[in-house]
Amino acid sequence: MTIKALVFDAYGTLYDVQSVRTAADEAFPGYGEIIAEVWRQKQLEYTWLRTLMGRYRDFSVITRDALVFTLRCLALDYHAAVVQRIMDKYLHLDLFPDAKDALTALKDRKLAILSNGSSEMLNALIHNSGMESVLDATISIDPARAFKPSRAAYALIETRLGTAPADVLFVSSNPFDVCGAKSFGLQVAWIERVTPAAMASESVDHQRPAPSTLFKMLRMQMDELGFAPDYRVGALAELPRVVSRG
Amino acid sequence: MTIKALVFDAYGTLYDVQSVRTAADEAFPGYGEIIAEVWRQKQLEYTWLRTLMGRYRDFSVITRDALVFTLRCLALDYHAAVVQRIMDKYLHLDLFPDAKDALTALKDRKLAILSNGSSEMLNALIHNSGMESVLDATISIDPARAFKPSRAAYALIETRLGTAPADVLFVSSNPFDVCGAKSFGLQVAWIERVTPAAMASESVDHQRPAPSTLFKMLRMQMDELGFAPDYRVGALAELPRVVSRG
Repeated sequence: MTIKALVFDAYGTLYDVQSVRTAADEAFPGYGEIIAEVWRQKQLEYTWLRTLMGRYRDFSVITRDALVFTLRCLALDYHAAVVQRIMDKYLHLDLFPDAKDALTALKDRKLAILSNGSSEMLNALIHNSGMESVLDATISIDPARAFKPSRAAYALIETRLGTAPADVLFVSSNPFDVCGAKSFGLQVAWIERVTPAAMASESVDHQRPAPSTLFKMLRMQMDELGFAPDYRVGALAELPRVVSRG
Repeated sequence: MTIKALVFDAYGTLYDVQSVRTAADEAFPGYGEIIAEVWRQKQLEYTWLRTLMGRYRDFSVITRDALVFTLRCLALDYHAAVVQRIMDKYLHLDLFPDAKDALTALKDRKLAILSNGSSEMLNALIHNSGMESVLDATISIDPARAFKPSRAAYALIETRLGTAPADVLFVSSNPFDVCGAKSFGLQVAWIERVTPAAMASESVDHQRPAPSTLFKMLRMQMDELGFAPDYRVGALAELPRVVSRG
């Protein structure tokens, strides 16, 4: 199969969403990890639920709503300024350490992001991480008013890049996104950051796993949705090798 | 507002899905609780994801897929017969203790179920729990090929009962379902089985909550989706009072 373009998921794939943990922990000492995990889970759920309900709001609204839910459920008192400070972290997420080198090595193909993020959030994120020169396009799902894994979201790739789905390698660490992209007709590489073996070794108690282990189970193991990735790699750094063989 | 019909969610509202815990614990001693919680979470996620992907499969397929995911992630070896035995429990769920009396007291209105379950699953469940004589209709979302909270799912109520959305009181314990029904235009009563106060008192460690507490947080606290129920009640037994005032 030819690969004319590589299109990357942003949150969790190029950018480490767990880097909000530090900001959350500064605001609520000891709660950083549980806030980051519940927040991310609800953020994703709200993208799915609002799309199904036909009540689209952009990703910044959903991200804020999910954070408010999280703080309320953890019985944490907060001021609007604290929510804003944690939210701002979403515009300054850390790149995964191998992201920039991997994308630079792939620069002979078209490179783009397809993300749930609003254009405003994505532009700030890409500017703040110095990725503007590496990417040919940054595609927000916003014009489709439907979040991934809706078909309308993935259809924006061809609209924006002019590349047929079969010639695109879509790269994501999120299992639901891998299945959605594959179902749509893209080639797909799954960045499998937490292997089953690694998960088994980190948990001494599968019957009552720690929250962080539980969320790795819920969000980082391949789903049973009838689709499988074309490629499974452990890190972005392995992509240039995959593409040169492809 | 008039209430001409009451329409109930089935799983988690009239029927206790946690009653599969015993069956799971018999098959995998010590794992009953974690299996039941992860299974339920993934079952819901798969209804949302498959609807968004345009890859509808009926609820029995999704329920089985979610169970297989759960056992795989918990590194539990299983045979097909074990999966089947736990799955069968879904046709024999326990009614919540106050369900039958509450519905019987409401029998002067139309009474129905609207559920994600397939017709086959629902018919077996209702037969096995002796609820046939109490209900006027059992509506599966299956003909819509879209799970709740899709608008197409709630639209089946008017199609089947001939009652306008504004004259229906929809009853659910599931926050996403409450928001979906309200967004669609139904009157909605939320069965709030786990109050924030009850949750706060059961958890001594909010920073590292036990899995059961975590899932109560994720699934039983009202979501931030821009909608609120018309009525909040602690149990089905309170409904006759709500309706007589309504």
